[in-house]
Amino acid sequence: MGWGTNEQLIIDILAHRNAAQRNLIRKTYREAYGEDLLKSLDEELSSDFERAVVLFTLDPAERDAFLAHEATKRFTSSHWVLMEIACTRSSHELFNVRKAYHDLYKKSLEEDVAHHTKGDYRKLLVPLVSAFRYQGEEVNMTLARSEAKILREKISDKQYSDEEVIRIVTTRSKAQLNATLNHYNTAFGNAINKDLKADPEDEFLKLLRAAIKCLTVPEKYFEKVLRQAINKLGTDEWALTRVVATRAEVDMVRIKEEYQRRNSVTLEKAIAGDTSGDYEKMLLALIGAGDV
Amino acid sequence: MGWGTNEQLIIDILAHRNAAQRNLIRKTYREAYGEDLLKSLDEELSSDFERAVVLFTLDPAERDAFLAHEATKRFTSSHWVLMEIACTRSSHELFNVRKAYHDLYKKSLEEDVAHHTKGDYRKLLVPLVSAFRYQGEEVNMTLARSEAKILREKISDKQYSDEEVIRIVTTRSKAQLNATLNHYNTAFGNAINKDLKADPEDEFLKLLRAAIKCLTVPEKYFEKVLRQAINKLGTDEWALTRVVATRAEVDMVRIKEEYQRRNSVTLEKAIAGDTSGDYEKMLLALIGAGDV
Repeated sequence: MGWGTNEQLIIDILAHRNAAQRNLIRKTYREAYGEDLLKSLDEELSSDFERAVVLFTLDPAERDAFLAHEATKRFTSSHWVLMEIACTRSSHELFNVRKAYHDLYKKSLEEDVAHHTKGDYRKLLVPLVSAFRYQGEEVNMTLARSEAKILREKISDKQYSDEEVIRIVTTRSKAQLNATLNHYNTAFGNAINKDLKADPEDEFLKLLRAAIKCLTVPEKYFEKVLRQAINKLGTDEWALTRVVATRAEVDMVRIKEEYQRRNSVTLEKAIAGDTSGDYEKMLLALIGAGDV
Repeated sequence: MGWGTNEQLIIDILAHRNAAQRNLIRKTYREAYGEDLLKSLDEELSSDFERAVVLFTLDPAERDAFLAHEATKRFTSSHWVLMEIACTRSSHELFNVRKAYHDLYKKSLEEDVAHHTKGDYRKLLVPLVSAFRYQGEEVNMTLARSEAKILREKISDKQYSDEEVIRIVTTRSKAQLNATLNHYNTAFGNAINKDLKADPEDEFLKLLRAAIKCLTVPEKYFEKVLRQAINKLGTDEWALTRVVATRAEVDMVRIKEEYQRRNSVTLEKAIAGDTSGDYEKMLLALIGAGDV
């Protein structure tokens, strides 16, 4: 499949993107190729450019449902993508992903996650994707203190997948979890993610740390994913496209600030140095490089 | 608190009940007593009649959120009420309960359930209340066969709270679970709930059996709750009121049929024989005894 000579037009539209124009792309796509965008995605698009256009153009809930479904399939399975979607979306957004998942795949997100994971990963991921966290800013300080203590004890005993650790991380509101982790830091002298680095090779620990990061400082998590995707020998386009397409309209401004602070180079420059052609133009348009 | 001379009026309205009239009751209540119904419920109403009126009058999602919250509090805690709400409501209804819970209690349902339960009960109840099951009728027979086999193996090994058993019961759609249990029955010669009776005194096993009943034949579950509430020495008004108030507008017709079949007496007659006064009149009005 090729896009013929429409690439620049598509990029131009997206550079001044809004929902109505995205619908236009979807319509244009259907007329030009005779099939729905989602179907094209499922058939594995041949180029990074196409994947970026199609992913971005989808409705956010459908897009996340698609990515989550991909993450439960054998050859594209990814605990990370599931964790990222579960922890960085708002409670209502995550619920909309679950609704879109029903519609698209005639199954529930949690049944696929539970079926395709096991052990500690299942214990963490199933409640993460099923959560409907309270979103208010109210914080219970007594609870924050007692749960910081629980976390400290379990981590000291290296019981990283203990059910109490899982319970606190997967059910508390982001505001409450943040208060608990602040108290942890103050009372025990270390940020929790430092204490969770005991075994740097433990893949479950890495995922748990990333979940805590996504729940409390998502822009730092995304900065790191972008940094690793770009610095990798042979750019990781899969991750780069995912983060750009899903965060473009959400918190890209903060992610770009974080990127520049951490790498002493702008995200625009880093992407331009690592990609080329329509794919490069598309990513730059999505991160708003043309807005300057 | 007393209702003065309005009891018959309230019962009369409820006998020809609909949403608009319930709103009227709620309004009347606020005018007469100067407070919201939910607040009255929280202060423990003094009579069974009042509890029945107030519970029924609440919006279904608020009512379930109230009952679930009560079920996580120390002196009114009940694994059964949590299981009942999680397993007999539709996926969207259960989600509306979770939304109402946020609004009323500034917390999530799952965080309270996880915080106030432990061990096997937590392993079962948290995914039950967090589920958003697919509601279509599509069934995968290959999956039904393989999961029936898993259930059989775990039950034979007495691993009743094994994570695979929990996964199947808590995540599969009701249609899929039903197909799995039908296959179980056909292939292994026993209904699963018969095999789960190995230890009749095991409280967790009782709850697991009840959950399976709620998910597949809810009217049989409710018939049994009513039967036990009525036959008990000193009627269990708490359960009687809950089932009548929550099922009146949903599946009371089927529950009444089931009750008569199992007890050779109508539910009306059984309730009339076991209750009295305004409470009796109210329950009879709610189960539609006056409709004949």
